[in-house]
Amino acid sequence: MMVGGQALRPLRVVAVGQADGRADGQAGGEAIEIIDQRLLPHRLEMRTLNSAKEVFVAIRDMWVRGAPLIGAVAAYGLALQAQRDASDVALANTAQFLSGARPTAVNLAWALARMQQVLLATPLADRARVAWAEADAIAEDDVRVNEAIGRHALPLLQAVAARRAGPVNVLTHCNAGWLATVDWGTATSPIYQAHAAGMAVHVWVDETRPRNQGASLTAWELGQAGVPHTVIADNAGGHLMQHGHVDLCIVGCDRVAANGDACNKIGTYLKALAAHDNAVPFYVAMPTSTLDMALADGVHGIPIEERSGRELTHVTGRNAVGDLVEVQLTPDGSAAGNWAFDVTPARLITGLITEHGIVQASSAALQTLMRDKS
Amino acid sequence: MMVGGQALRPLRVVAVGQADGRADGQAGGEAIEIIDQRLLPHRLEMRTLNSAKEVFVAIRDMWVRGAPLIGAVAAYGLALQAQRDASDVALANTAQFLSGARPTAVNLAWALARMQQVLLATPLADRARVAWAEADAIAEDDVRVNEAIGRHALPLLQAVAARRAGPVNVLTHCNAGWLATVDWGTATSPIYQAHAAGMAVHVWVDETRPRNQGASLTAWELGQAGVPHTVIADNAGGHLMQHGHVDLCIVGCDRVAANGDACNKIGTYLKALAAHDNAVPFYVAMPTSTLDMALADGVHGIPIEERSGRELTHVTGRNAVGDLVEVQLTPDGSAAGNWAFDVTPARLITGLITEHGIVQASSAALQTLMRDKS
Repeated sequence: MMVGGQALRPLRVVAVGQADGRADGQAGGEAIEIIDQRLLPHRLEMRTLNSAKEVFVAIRDMWVRGAPLIGAVAAYGLALQAQRDASDVALANTAQFLSGARPTAVNLAWALARMQQVLLATPLADRARVAWAEADAIAEDDVRVNEAIGRHALPLLQAVAARRAGPVNVLTHCNAGWLATVDWGTATSPIYQAHAAGMAVHVWVDETRPRNQGASLTAWELGQAGVPHTVIADNAGGHLMQHGHVDLCIVGCDRVAANGDACNKIGTYLKALAAHDNAVPFYVAMPTSTLDMALADGVHGIPIEERSGRELTHVTGRNAVGDLVEVQLTPDGSAAGNWAFDVTPARLITGLITEHGIVQASSAALQTLMRDKS
Repeated sequence: MMVGGQALRPLRVVAVGQADGRADGQAGGEAIEIIDQRLLPHRLEMRTLNSAKEVFVAIRDMWVRGAPLIGAVAAYGLALQAQRDASDVALANTAQFLSGARPTAVNLAWALARMQQVLLATPLADRARVAWAEADAIAEDDVRVNEAIGRHALPLLQAVAARRAGPVNVLTHCNAGWLATVDWGTATSPIYQAHAAGMAVHVWVDETRPRNQGASLTAWELGQAGVPHTVIADNAGGHLMQHGHVDLCIVGCDRVAANGDACNKIGTYLKALAAHDNAVPFYVAMPTSTLDMALADGVHGIPIEERSGRELTHVTGRNAVGDLVEVQLTPDGSAAGNWAFDVTPARLITGLITEHGIVQASSAALQTLMRDKS
């Protein structure tokens, strides 16, 4: 996306010059550069990742986050390994290592499996080159997939605009924007396409505690793109839907089970309940790479990552003089529980927006989709 | 409640010595002292309020909050006025002024009406003395009412404890604790009584954005009382209920309509939806002073206060060296919407816990209750 007149993506491949002399004695080759999302919206800073180990840390500690982006970054992590040691054992070990960085998003495992499948079928001498090419292909596929998701969902917004005057009000939770992907975003793709087409669209941005991805990332993205938006507490969506201020909800997802249950940032389930109670359409933008057909039941089968309570008890923001400062919100001695995701039952989902079109969140529809596309 | 070995209440009457010489030339008399709840959980500091105008500011700016406490503090505000000028006009003007401090909680109007009714029937010369006595009576009634609410709700917790091993898990939203009342709290009253009786009880404390009353006030209260608790994001309750980790929800309220619809801190409605979806009992602790029988329909009739977006875009916490620091969370230029309350439809409420017992959230049950008690 364009930021300050420049095309920007949350990750890109950069050449590592001879001058950068690497710890392992190798010189040259490629590295990846990512936006350190922990510093947004206050600072836009890049970090260079030179090894699978650095990629692991960047994923685990959420310098990068968002299921599609995690998948792409992990693929490059395997490419970074392949340019050092591309043996079967080294690749398998690295893939296993990287897959443990975050437990919930299936794209991580999906991208690593795709990389391994290609690399194991490639002669050892070619693996480094092929690994970079395949990671590039995963990244470019993600861009195409997200563009297609936006194209398929755009008519949902157009239908609202055709029905009545005033901006189309979309509520979203967390960040399923371009910062969560390689470009476009998933949930935001139709919003950006609608805005580009001149449609009046306004986004209710859930703050998204505890990591505030809505307040810090989605609000920043939309602001940079000039899309009208309002940050709200995660508590507010029900009230807004009850009073007709939301035309539709669109969220992303981290894993969708074969029955259509969708795992996404904690609190998504509550918004889906409110949408259902107020007859507001609730859509999940789902690249098929996020679909886990091996998992029959999402509510009972998807492992939910528990993260440090400190993400809840402390928060970092910008003080009056522009420094980033961490402050404590809770009393000393109060425990905090921090589940990163919840699962929205398929019955509450109006439709899954995939790169192939919008499908029902049901076993039958997903089986048909995957059979037709395989 | 006991805090650090001392009995503490969020407001008390204090004598104003001759030495304090007042701006209006009067000396002596009484003032009220309140806990400045904006500084909790980091600092426990008192503020003295000497006039109705100071009471107005303390209510509007939420030095004190919670429907029952607002009512009691407003009553004392009228007493402060009565000791200066107790004429019909002065009392009427002051009551109208104070009632505008916060629009949603009905206790404010209720307490002011009760004070006026008594004072207008009192000879002018006696009004100051009677005003203090009536405000004291309102405060002491609140203590008795909350004690009774806890007594009536205690069997709900006992039934869970009798059914299975392990602590009884109660989820609460916002702060309906003793800090929101004169003592005991409403939603917390059964919890404190259960804890005092030796029952194992554990409280899931919703952080309660944007003002964090759960993370700052409820967590502090429970910690001071030694009640096991865990602070969670407002987003987390649905996940916990979906997986059987919540035995019952108990929340407070700011106004209940004649049809049983309950207005409470924003986000309550979302928790009620999750409770309903997972067959978790959802109770609203309601002193009958919070019941507005003149309002037929809560969802459509209760005015919802909109507060400054700054409560969402900025947050105050304690930095590493113990200072209270305000930091900005959102990007410059992003708007924020801040509705303080939402309304939970009666159909989602298992029961209203009143000082007279637990009643159905329905027009019929509330009419019977008020007829029998009037």
